[in-house]
This record gives sequence, structure tokens and C-alpha cells, in this order.
Amino acid sequence: MLKQQRVVIGNISPHVECGAFFVKRVVGEEVNIIADVLGDGHDVIQAEVQFKHETAKDYTLIRMHHLGNDVYGATFQVDKQGFYEYNVRAWVDHALNWQHGIHAKLKDRQHVKSELLDGIQYLQYLAKNVGSKEQADLELWMQHFGDEAHYDSATKIATSHKLENLFLRYPQRFLANTGKSLQLYVDRKKANFSTWYEFFPRSASPEVGRHGTFKDCEPLLPRIAEMGFDVLYFPPIHPIGEKNRKGKNNATHAEEGDSGVPWAIGSKLGGHTAIHPELGTEEDFKELIKKAQEHRIEIAIDLAFQAAPDHPYISEHPEWFRKRPDGTIQYAENPPKKYQDIVNFYFESTAYKALWKELLDVTLHWVNCGITIFRVDNPHTKPYYFWHWLIAQVKKKHPDVLFLAEAFSRPKVMQQLAKQGFSQSYTYFTWRIFKNELIEYMTELTQSEMREYYRPNFWPNTPDINPYHLQGANEAMHLIRYTLAATLCGNLGIYGPVFEFMISDAFPGKEEYLNSEKYEIRHWDWNLKNKLIYVISKINAERRAHESLQQTNNIRFCEINNDRLIAFYKWNDKKTDETLTIINLDHHYAHRGSVQLPLEALGVHHGHPIEVYDVITNNNYIWHSEWNFIELHPALPFHIFHIKK
Amino acid sequence: MLKQQRVVIGNISPHVECGAFFVKRVVGEEVNIIADVLGDGHDVIQAEVQFKHETAKDYTLIRMHHLGNDVYGATFQVDKQGFYEYNVRAWVDHALNWQHGIHAKLKDRQHVKSELLDGIQYLQYLAKNVGSKEQADLELWMQHFGDEAHYDSATKIATSHKLENLFLRYPQRFLANTGKSLQLYVDRKKANFSTWYEFFPRSASPEVGRHGTFKDCEPLLPRIAEMGFDVLYFPPIHPIGEKNRKGKNNATHAEEGDSGVPWAIGSKLGGHTAIHPELGTEEDFKELIKKAQEHRIEIAIDLAFQAAPDHPYISEHPEWFRKRPDGTIQYAENPPKKYQDIVNFYFESTAYKALWKELLDVTLHWVNCGITIFRVDNPHTKPYYFWHWLIAQVKKKHPDVLFLAEAFSRPKVMQQLAKQGFSQSYTYFTWRIFKNELIEYMTELTQSEMREYYRPNFWPNTPDINPYHLQGANEAMHLIRYTLAATLCGNLGIYGPVFEFMISDAFPGKEEYLNSEKYEIRHWDWNLKNKLIYVISKINAERRAHESLQQTNNIRFCEINNDRLIAFYKWNDKKTDETLTIINLDHHYAHRGSVQLPLEALGVHHGHPIEVYDVITNNNYIWHSEWNFIELHPALPFHIFHIKK
Repeated sequence: MLKQQRVVIGNISPHVECGAFFVKRVVGEEVNIIADVLGDGHDVIQAEVQFKHETAKDYTLIRMHHLGNDVYGATFQVDKQGFYEYNVRAWVDHALNWQHGIHAKLKDRQHVKSELLDGIQYLQYLAKNVGSKEQADLELWMQHFGDEAHYDSATKIATSHKLENLFLRYPQRFLANTGKSLQLYVDRKKANFSTWYEFFPRSASPEVGRHGTFKDCEPLLPRIAEMGFDVLYFPPIHPIGEKNRKGKNNATHAEEGDSGVPWAIGSKLGGHTAIHPELGTEEDFKELIKKAQEHRIEIAIDLAFQAAPDHPYISEHPEWFRKRPDGTIQYAENPPKKYQDIVNFYFESTAYKALWKELLDVTLHWVNCGITIFRVDNPHTKPYYFWHWLIAQVKKKHPDVLFLAEAFSRPKVMQQLAKQGFSQSYTYFTWRIFKNELIEYMTELTQSEMREYYRPNFWPNTPDINPYHLQGANEAMHLIRYTLAATLCGNLGIYGPVFEFMISDAFPGKEEYLNSEKYEIRHWDWNLKNKLIYVISKINAERRAHESLQQTNNIRFCEINNDRLIAFYKWNDKKTDETLTIINLDHHYAHRGSVQLPLEALGVHHGHPIEVYDVITNNNYIWHSEWNFIELHPALPFHIFHIKK
Repeated sequence: MLKQQRVVIGNISPHVECGAFFVKRVVGEEVNIIADVLGDGHDVIQAEVQFKHETAKDYTLIRMHHLGNDVYGATFQVDKQGFYEYNVRAWVDHALNWQHGIHAKLKDRQHVKSELLDGIQYLQYLAKNVGSKEQADLELWMQHFGDEAHYDSATKIATSHKLENLFLRYPQRFLANTGKSLQLYVDRKKANFSTWYEFFPRSASPEVGRHGTFKDCEPLLPRIAEMGFDVLYFPPIHPIGEKNRKGKNNATHAEEGDSGVPWAIGSKLGGHTAIHPELGTEEDFKELIKKAQEHRIEIAIDLAFQAAPDHPYISEHPEWFRKRPDGTIQYAENPPKKYQDIVNFYFESTAYKALWKELLDVTLHWVNCGITIFRVDNPHTKPYYFWHWLIAQVKKKHPDVLFLAEAFSRPKVMQQLAKQGFSQSYTYFTWRIFKNELIEYMTELTQSEMREYYRPNFWPNTPDINPYHLQGANEAMHLIRYTLAATLCGNLGIYGPVFEFMISDAFPGKEEYLNSEKYEIRHWDWNLKNKLIYVISKINAERRAHESLQQTNNIRFCEINNDRLIAFYKWNDKKTDETLTIINLDHHYAHRGSVQLPLEALGVHHGHPIEVYDVITNNNYIWHSEWNFIELHPALPFHIFHIKK
């Protein structure tokens, strides 16, 4: 094939694995497109980004600028949810090249009569495309270009910005080349900014020993709303298997009256579309969802695609499970370990299509109840392509629905799930404690390809993870971990009320809670107030007030000369909101240090006064230097500074 | 689409720009394929590389091994020139998974009667595929697996390597997934290992003042062969334009008798398929090519696709050139500079297809004369797609032909030409003088994506480049620059005889030769012998004797505690030839330092005696330590050590 184009385009970014997966954004975010664009020789080339939403008929075009080293860039903002397509088109711009050449020759004091004649063709092209007002100008210019008597006026026009702008507005795009198209998917803002609270509804009862109900949850909504949470996540709300039910503290066998593990779903009382009768009815649940919405809270439920041995599916659809040679169902295993209270779906079954469809129907059942966010249990034990299909199917009709992947696994596994479509993902944050590892991990999340498709959600604790550093830890440690999650990441969550009540008794030698709610009903005094609750509420309020804290990728760590102090600058895309956060990672002692302001990023020169306003204490400081003194005490071990220039 | 596969494959390497361009290798080189391969859950997965030459009917399969972090790898060697296709196929291996599980349970002292029953299906699959000898074994094993009386024997077989090997040899590949196919192109070895000598045939005359001829070149072949060069490259051999001919030292106008610039091709005496009559006839040229071959030298000629103003094409094919508005041909320009002795082809002409075909015919004309290597002049001033097409067309019928891109331009431009198909490329080597910049540049060439498609050719000097560090430089500097090129890179070239005669008079203030052969005929005493010639000959002989020096990418810099000493270890793919080269970059003073042997790469432990044999001096040393003393004097400022373990 004889391709006559003289411009080549390559390495269009952003992309995820060369376009195998779509890039992710949320409404209002910017997309910075860059690409290598080269022409042969030295003629002036031009490049533009073409992009359009899936519902748009035509492309929107934005001219790119040369950023150096043959890299061209342009930025656009995405305003709608759904898919966008984007690519790069480029060409040798003969009009601009002609103008560049004539300018250089005039500077060199050469006579350009021939060049002016040569330029008439570019004016002719413009004349065919401009409005009538500019037509007249062009007619005149074309005359002057061909008339030696008007040489001076012709050369002035030839090198004018007015003419340049016409060339930019009406490019001829002769022999234009177009690069490979790429896709991005835009979610609602909640995907990038959400503040999660998890508790067990069955522990919501004000009466000791009674199983909590959805109705019991309703009076808890105000406290959760006041604390500033906007997602309320429940572990599975379905009937719990009775066969092989586990007992307290993960005992292999349940005692009489033990409530079992919510993730062991299904019994004669129903399966994944049923509600545990002791929690209430579906009407109770819808009522709770509605009340939560009034508090601007979305209820998120747990999608745990597995079955207890007495789940209705086992008898109704044996073809969805793997049988052992002796005819019994194969329960979950990771040899030599056995998990007798769980049976995994058999995705390799020839009946997989019906299985996929059923699981989609289950999901849609809850969407139709009013659920817009799902936390997905152990997605890495189900096929990747299944999730891709399920998420795509749901979002086709319900684009608002978000999926959080709970996969604590190897890095590539967690990344793959995000690539396949999960809106958010749990992370290794829970085990990143020291300054160096926090910076290293944030750098990976926000500077590698992960920034384009992996939306982290930072959880200081979960029902499965009572990290060693929180076991028996003081208030300062809880403050530190909450603040880190809430300021580093756009999405975070806590498992309460054990977190804010600082109830961290552990199962000896494990990162597990003692007498964990996973295995038994607990009773909490939900009215308890403490300083941690107050500070969490303040922090969450400030997250809502500052766009720079409503995202994760725009972060830059600042030098601060103390290894227990971590400092970082965050900004929203348009830099109308900028914050500087400093946290003392030492839960026992005060620390001092000097923090370096990122003057260049802030766009200010040395000596320009910067006001930093502590959004928690309402104290403010005026800084005139690049380096500034910081002292933080465990009683309130952080500054969240709003930067005012 | 409902894809049932449980294994995903991504990031297959090597690739060039996500498969947009083919990877390059030479015959005998190894290809290390890696890919991310993931399954859900924890079942055992297997992956294999499938590859085949373009002439092969079926794929060759090689099993991959887990290298850590879900990366799988395998290596194969390419034996034929031409295109190979490769991809990765992977699956959940239920047989191996079953074996892994039963092994773990037995270690845990569990009874595995049910698991043995479960394993019969995998033996059944084997039974359908193995040869008759193994059939009998399998029949017996299947009996034992189902018979409690043979439990012990069954468990022994179940966990045996014998059975594992059968599973590896006869995989069921259930629900296998295949990644994206990629291409690589294999050239003959010369593409990666060539030693170039350039001189101007018109300066080959033994008589002062007479224009040299091809016949004059014949007696020069032995000296070039003895020096160890295997490519003899001539600047353009065609008639030189008379119109606007340049004079000595790039004078705008030629004086009477000035020979003009060989790159200003074409006059009434002919164009790109003609030979400058003063050089001889086409028969003379073919004779020279033949004689060169007897000396195991390939003649390379210059493809300079441009025309002097009096080239026959100008009158015969005006449609291949751009006209100015006054009707005259547009000569080459880079405003404000003008190059009146050159007219560029007008690749944007509507007649471009005929132009492309003509240039291909020109190339094939010389291929049919016996030329197998072309050095291409300023390819970056002609369209990239044109080169891609021309090179592909030539190599389709003449796969041995190689193309060297002479583009001294921006990095992306040089890379693009290599991606589009050039077999070798000039580099920035000529301006990499100090240790840090040499290491940085080599690291870019051999560790970035460039290693897969860019074959560097290192030239210490060219007719266009008389680098400042060689101007008036002593013998040591010339030794250093030659040795660097010859040991760092598989391909190198010098412009002689000015290099080996150390004739470095410069045009004042420029990196140009004074009285350059580009603009006039020179006369040399070709019989001159000096130490530099002797050492060049020795080095080139050792390049031929050591495979590690016949390639570029397998290089690793060694610590040596002196900034004027550079040390590097090189190896061939199979590590049957390993060398350690140390060069003193200081052309005035001796330097001392200690060099660190790369023990791990060498595969030896501390204290294992290593013999290093200096291939130039024939001195050898036995080293017992990791760090070893080095002293190099400008008189012979390098060691090329053959490593013997």
C-alpha cells in the first residue's frame, strides 16, 4: 500500500495496555492527550485531538501544541458519563509553513516576491472557507501579494498574526494522517470521591442480644451523615447457610444460636435475591435506602457470588456447581485448607451462560431496589471476563452504578480487575505505615499507568483486617490512619464503629478482630461520642469543601526534613483549590521540621506571601519563605492547609 | 460476548509500539518472550509461546515458566531470515492443578480417596493421546486410583514426576486463551555485526590530480581487508550536477575544474542509475564488487534521493518536482538557508506512485549489479511511509539487502526511521565522549525499547563530521574513539583514510574537514602504515573472533572507581563467549583503578579464579578477587579481555 502521508503519529496517551482496556475518568475531569507527531524534513506540522462522546455525531477538535521532543499535547474536559472516543489527526500545514518560511527570509533581508506569489494559493483556500467579512480582506490581500507596488503591505500581511489565526482556524489538512482511536469511560464523580462507612446491620439493635434490623439502622443514619459519610456499606444481607455454619471466632462448627457468617449465603430461607428475615423485609430495606438518600447517603451492598451448602441454587441448579466423583458438591478449597461453609460457582460449567445471566439478574434485582453501589467480595476468585461482562451489562442501562473490587491479592490480579471495569479497588494502603512506603505506594498509584484505570479506596481497617498497628493503639494512631486515608485518597472507608470507638481487641497473633462481627452479633452504644468522631467529622466536611481532596492523582510530595513527617500538595485540575497536608506519623511524640513549599507548582515566586489556613483548627499563617517551620503533636497530629495565594 | 476463558494474557513482550512495528533480530539470536498471565483463584495455570516462520505451516510451541509477579517467560532462537509470528497461549491446567492439590493434602496427612477418583479423568485424557507403551501404564494406574487396596501405590503415582511429565507433554488446554500476535523480522547476521570503511573512489588515484577510478580502488582492497573491514562504503558514484555546482570548502560557486559534491546527483551524463564516467563503467564497478567479495568485503553504495538542477529527471519528469509560481524548480531550502545545488523530490505530487516506483527501480538496478548494502542519505527528509514501502519491497525479493539510515536528527525522528524498517542507523555516538554520557547513551540503546528495533552503527568520524575532540588530536584519542566504537557496538564505521592517518585539519570553527573530499578530489599515500592501523587491524580481528563483540545489546557496565576509566562486560546469548573491556578515556595521562567483576552475571562465586586474556597484547592475568587493579596508559589505552572461567 502506497501511503502518501508525510506525518506519522504514535504513542497516543493516555492508554491502558495499548488500548486493550479503556481509560477511566469522572465527570468534570481533564484528559491530557499527548502523542508523538513527526513529519519528514522541517515543514511545519499541526496536530489536533478529535474526541466525541458515544452519543455525539461529530468529533470535537482541539489543536495540539508542541511540548518538546516531538510530543504534542492538548487537554479536554469530559462532561458526560459514558464512553468517549479520541484520536489524533495531523498534517503538514503548508500555509503555516509558507508563513514561517517567508518570515525567516524577511528576517534575513531576502526579497520575497516569489514567495508572495507562492502564498496566493493559501489565501485562495481561505477565501473559499471564511465568512463574507473576511472575504473582502482576502481579496485585497491576494491582489497585493501579486502586485510589486504593494510589496510592503503584502509582507506585513504575510507575517501577521491575523493571517496566522486564519490559517489556524481553517486548516487545509492536506494528506492528513490519523492515529489509532482509543476509548475512555466517564463515571459520575462519586467514583472518584466517596466516603464509606461499613457496619453490620445485625449489630444495630439497641437491645443487647437481639438481631438488628433495617429499622434499627434508620436512627443511626443521622450520626453517619453528621460524620460526613456518603456511602453506607453493608456486608451481605441475605439468609445465612445453616449447613456447616461457622461458630464464634471462626470456629469450624456453630453452637446453637450462633448467627453464622453473612458471606455464607443461602439457606431454605432464600438466596441472593432474598433478605435475611431477621433483618426485615424488602420494603424495610427500600425504606432504609430512601431514608439514607434523604441524608445524602447511598447504601452499598455486598455482591458475594458464592453459596452456602444449603443455598437453594444447590438443589435447583446443580449444573452451576462442580461435583466430586462421589456425587457430592465440591466446597471451596485452597489445598490443604478447606472452607466447608462455602461452595464456589463452577464457571467452567457448560451451563455458564445461564449462570452468568442469573448473577446479572441478581445484581439488577438490587439495582431495581435502589442500590447504586456494590462492593464485590473476592472478585479474583471469579473469572475476569465474567466481571467485564457483568459490569458492562449493568452500566449499559444503569451508568450510575459503581463496583468496588475487594481483592487483596497480587498486584497484577488487582490491576487486572480494575482494567476489566471495576470502578474502585481496595489497596495495600492498610499495610503502608511508614513515610517511605506511603510515598512509594502513592507514586505507583498516581504516576504509573495505574492512574488511568485504577481508582484506589483506602481503608484503615475492615472486618477482615485489624492491622497490627491498630491493635491496642491509642487515639493518635487512629487519627493518623484516618487522616492519611482521607487526605491521600479521594475514596476511603472505615469499618465502624470499632474504628471510631477504637475497639481493637485482636484474635491473638492475627490481624483479626476478637469476637469478630463476622461470626457473631455484637452490641454497640451508638451514642458514644469522642474526639476521634469529632475530628473524622471535621475532616470529612473539609473533603466536601475542597475539590483538591476529592481526587487522588493530583498529588505531589513535598520535602520535609523529618522522616516521621509526611507532607503533600494536592490540587484540582484547574488549580482553583490547592491544599497542603502535613501529618506526623508518630503516635507517641511531637515532631518538628521544615516543609518546602512547591513554589513552581503553585506558580509563585520566592517571597510571595502564601496564606495557609488550617481547616480543622481555623488557624492561619502567612508564609513568606520557601521553607517553613512545622510542629505537630499526637493530640492533633496533622495540618490540612488550604493554600491562599 | 460471553467469554468463558479464565486466564487472561497481557503485555506480551518484546513489542515495538504495541505491535505497530515489527521487532528485529538476526539469524541465531535469541528471543525472550514474556507476558503477564493470570488466572482467577489459585488453580495452576500454564502458558506457552507459539511461534512460526512465515514459511512454516504450524506453530512451534514452547512452555513458559513463571518468573515471578505473574510474569511468564520462554526463549527461542530464530534460525531463518524473514518474518516470524509469535503469541502466547495459556490455560488453567486441571491435571497439574489436581496433582498439586493432592500433593498438598497428602503432606497435610489427609486421606485422598475421593481425590484419586477425581484424578481418573486426567489419566483418561492421557490414555487417548500417549503412545502404546505408556498406554499400559495408564490402564494400570486408572485401576489403582479406583481401588482402595492399591491406595499407597496410587498416591505414589499421583505425586510422581513421571505423571507430571505426562501432564506437561499432553496438556488438555481446556478453555485456552490466546494473546495478541506480534511480528518480528530476522535479518542475516551482518545486520548486527558489520565493520565499515568509507572512502571516496575519486581520491583513489595513485597520481596526484587525477580523478580516481574503480580500477584504482582494486589495489586498495587488500589493505582494507587486512585492516579487518567487511563493508566498503562509497559516497554517491553517479554523475555530478554542473549547474550551481559547489566549489572547494563549500564555496557557493565552483571554479573551473572543481569536481563538485557527489551528493549533487545528475547531469547530462546521467542520473541515479548511471556511473560518473570518470569513475569507470558499470563493468568496472561490477568487477570491483566481485573482487571485493573475494576479500570478503561487501560494497555499500549511497542512496541519495535528490537531484542536481541538471539531473535528467528535471526535464523528463517535471511532475516529480515542485515548481515555484514563476515556473522554476524549487530547490532545497531550510529558510533562510538555500541549497541551490540540490532539488528535492516532490513526494506530495499526484504523480507520487510513479516516483516511488522509479526510486525502487533505481535501488533494484544496483541490487542487480551486486549491491547488498545501502547507506541512505538524509532519509528524514523523505516520507517515512515511502521508506517503509521501499525497504519492504526490496527485501521481499532480496532479503539479504541491508539499509543504513544516515539521519542526524531528533531522537524520535531517528527512532521512527528504524521502526519503519531501516536495518541499521547512525547514532549520537560521535558526540558521546565522557564516561557518564557514554553509559547513559548505551543504556538508552540497549535497555529501552530501542534495543528491539534500532541497530546502532557507531562512526567516530564521517565526511560530514570532524568532531572537535578529533581535531588536532593525538594518536591516543584516535585509538580511544576507535576502540569505543568497536567494542561497544556490533556495527561501526570510519571515514578513511583521514581517520587512520589522523588527518584532522578542520574548517575553522566547524566540525568539518578542511579541504574536504566532499568538495574536491584529494590524494592519499595509501601505503602509509602506523600504529593506529595496526591496532585497528588487531581489534577488528578480535571482533571476528569473539561473538560477544558481534552484537550490541548484551552489555553491562562494571563499576570501576575512576571517572576516566570505563569498563563493560559483554556476552553472546549462550554465554560461550564473554569479554571484559576497559578503556582509558584520557588521551594524555595514564589512569589507575579497580574494576569490579560481575560475578553473578559470570555465574561464579567469590574466589573462583578467573583468567582474563588481553586479546591485543596476549598478556593474561588470573584474578581471584571481585575487585581488580587496572592501569592503562595512552600508548595502548585499553584492555579487551577474553574471560576464561
